[in-house]
Amino acid sequence: MPSRKIFVDACFGKETPYTPVWMMRQAGRYLPEYMKVRAKAGDFLNLCHDPKAAAAVTIQPLDIVGVDAAILFTDILVIPDEMGMDLSFVKGEGPKFSDPLTSQADLDRLIGGDEAASKLTYVFDTIKILRKELDERGDNIALIGFAGAPWTLATYMIEGQGTKTYNICKKMMYSNPELLHNILREVTEVLKLYLEKQIQAGVDVVQIFDSWAAAIEVDNYDEFSWSYMVEIAEYIKAKYPHIPIIMFPKGIPAFYDKVYGNFDVFGIDWATPMEYAKEKLGDKYVLQGNMEPCRLYSKEQTTVSVEKIQKVMNGKRHIFNLGHGILPDIPVENAKHFVSECQRVSKK
Amino acid sequence: MPSRKIFVDACFGKETPYTPVWMMRQAGRYLPEYMKVRAKAGDFLNLCHDPKAAAAVTIQPLDIVGVDAAILFTDILVIPDEMGMDLSFVKGEGPKFSDPLTSQADLDRLIGGDEAASKLTYVFDTIKILRKELDERGDNIALIGFAGAPWTLATYMIEGQGTKTYNICKKMMYSNPELLHNILREVTEVLKLYLEKQIQAGVDVVQIFDSWAAAIEVDNYDEFSWSYMVEIAEYIKAKYPHIPIIMFPKGIPAFYDKVYGNFDVFGIDWATPMEYAKEKLGDKYVLQGNMEPCRLYSKEQTTVSVEKIQKVMNGKRHIFNLGHGILPDIPVENAKHFVSECQRVSKK
Repeated sequence: MPSRKIFVDACFGKETPYTPVWMMRQAGRYLPEYMKVRAKAGDFLNLCHDPKAAAAVTIQPLDIVGVDAAILFTDILVIPDEMGMDLSFVKGEGPKFSDPLTSQADLDRLIGGDEAASKLTYVFDTIKILRKELDERGDNIALIGFAGAPWTLATYMIEGQGTKTYNICKKMMYSNPELLHNILREVTEVLKLYLEKQIQAGVDVVQIFDSWAAAIEVDNYDEFSWSYMVEIAEYIKAKYPHIPIIMFPKGIPAFYDKVYGNFDVFGIDWATPMEYAKEKLGDKYVLQGNMEPCRLYSKEQTTVSVEKIQKVMNGKRHIFNLGHGILPDIPVENAKHFVSECQRVSKK
Repeated sequence: MPSRKIFVDACFGKETPYTPVWMMRQAGRYLPEYMKVRAKAGDFLNLCHDPKAAAAVTIQPLDIVGVDAAILFTDILVIPDEMGMDLSFVKGEGPKFSDPLTSQADLDRLIGGDEAASKLTYVFDTIKILRKELDERGDNIALIGFAGAPWTLATYMIEGQGTKTYNICKKMMYSNPELLHNILREVTEVLKLYLEKQIQAGVDVVQIFDSWAAAIEVDNYDEFSWSYMVEIAEYIKAKYPHIPIIMFPKGIPAFYDKVYGNFDVFGIDWATPMEYAKEKLGDKYVLQGNMEPCRLYSKEQTTVSVEKIQKVMNGKRHIFNLGHGILPDIPVENAKHFVSECQRVSKK
């Protein structure tokens, strides 16, 4: 059974010979091989813009750590960048937009819909290279495409950078919700076409990351984030029902009772106990996750956690992952240990 | 009925003529009057070290915003500072310790127990000034003392500053838990005496803030944080049963089923729905909270939230508060509106 089929089957909740495993940020700074490609590319955005280099780092964790799926290397913020906002990465400070959105006029100046989505050729070219390479490999591993959720992207577009308090977007949410909705709607339209084009270029699965879900009150989460994510999922499902969709809204366990929508896999963050997630969502969705990534500092603690998660999920309707991205200072051999432990405990 | 008695009664779950309200960070940067005192003091630490100035800013929100309790103005990090770590506040970057703890030898160099607690005379002097001033006022308002939880303090002592990933303390937690426990134990001993001395100096209530509770996995939370907080509470309760204790572990709703200990009030953060908190904890503890502080950007949205919280708590076993600290750019009149709305909806 080719591993690509195993991963897609697992996303659809079908029985598989083992529980597949991948890691958020698996193509990243903990790998010396990644750092080499990155150094050559110059800055982080250059790496995203270079299909050959982006494809190369996407492949690295397959060979080095042995994960069961590749995830496209790119950044969620290429979307607002191509919509006409000026993205840069300032060393040690993270992403910056020089001209954050403060008004309808600011939003009106952006490029929307197909015009914006079509500008992301470097992403689709990366996928085409990867599809070809993965097809040529004996194991034919699944390729995951992804995008940031409209809300998560909007936080950067409004704040101009990462934020601890989200106070500028919250101010908009509570005093000018129409403008926030207009921004979210505009981004949603681009994301539908962006993910569609990723699928046409060759990804097998798509994941939507709502990294800043927890910044919204539970009572407001559907209105300002989830409904837009579901709208994107419905659009994709209507046209590409064979493509599994993974939703990852980070840190909103209190919303689990209200989760709805046509998608396949729900990603669980590390702070939400897997038992709780299984009880609330396990019948409706396949669950992905959720080892606390800092456990990777200790092989022993990694094994404890993998065994615990396996005991809860019992190899059914489950994909192993971390509950958040792997950190840059994790030893590669510990990442390998995590992957092989997931494969060991779940083998049937 | 003097308002001091009303506040203490409310903490003990007794019926009161209205639900008292205060705001985390109520003595803070959103008040121009605070900014004036702060500018005079020079830096933030100077303000903490100056009992007259610290007492003045503690009093300000009583007169300006009309809250029902005063909370001592100081910083949680004065504890590690007086234990011998060199604290400074770098503008725009927050607190820094020049020499973070990396080993048992580093910890052994610190001052512990009564020797450290006794060095905080400026805090106890602030309380003495406040007690006198509050006693002299007609309304005789309650004074809340506080401390940071051992875990929250330890994160700064180990990382040397605030952190997004907690990776240095997590590494210690998973690979050298003994050292982390030794640090937590040492801090716990100082905190017991520190809060005791605050009570002896004249506070009516104490609150323990575990601001970084959510950084710990639920399964580990008791071991690395909650048990130490409970130990402090037990120490205080045994000697001062008439002093209510408020516990505020931020962002750990999944731990609510496991909460135990001899204290009176449980603080609910804004991301945890009050209905959920009431169901899990409302019979055992008085609940404090929990308006999302960014709702203060809109008076209308403030009223919506206050009415909703009142509907859930119904004026029973409840203290109104924000679910996190007030932000610096909130208009003072909106803060006043919050306070008066809490008083309006809960008046019997």
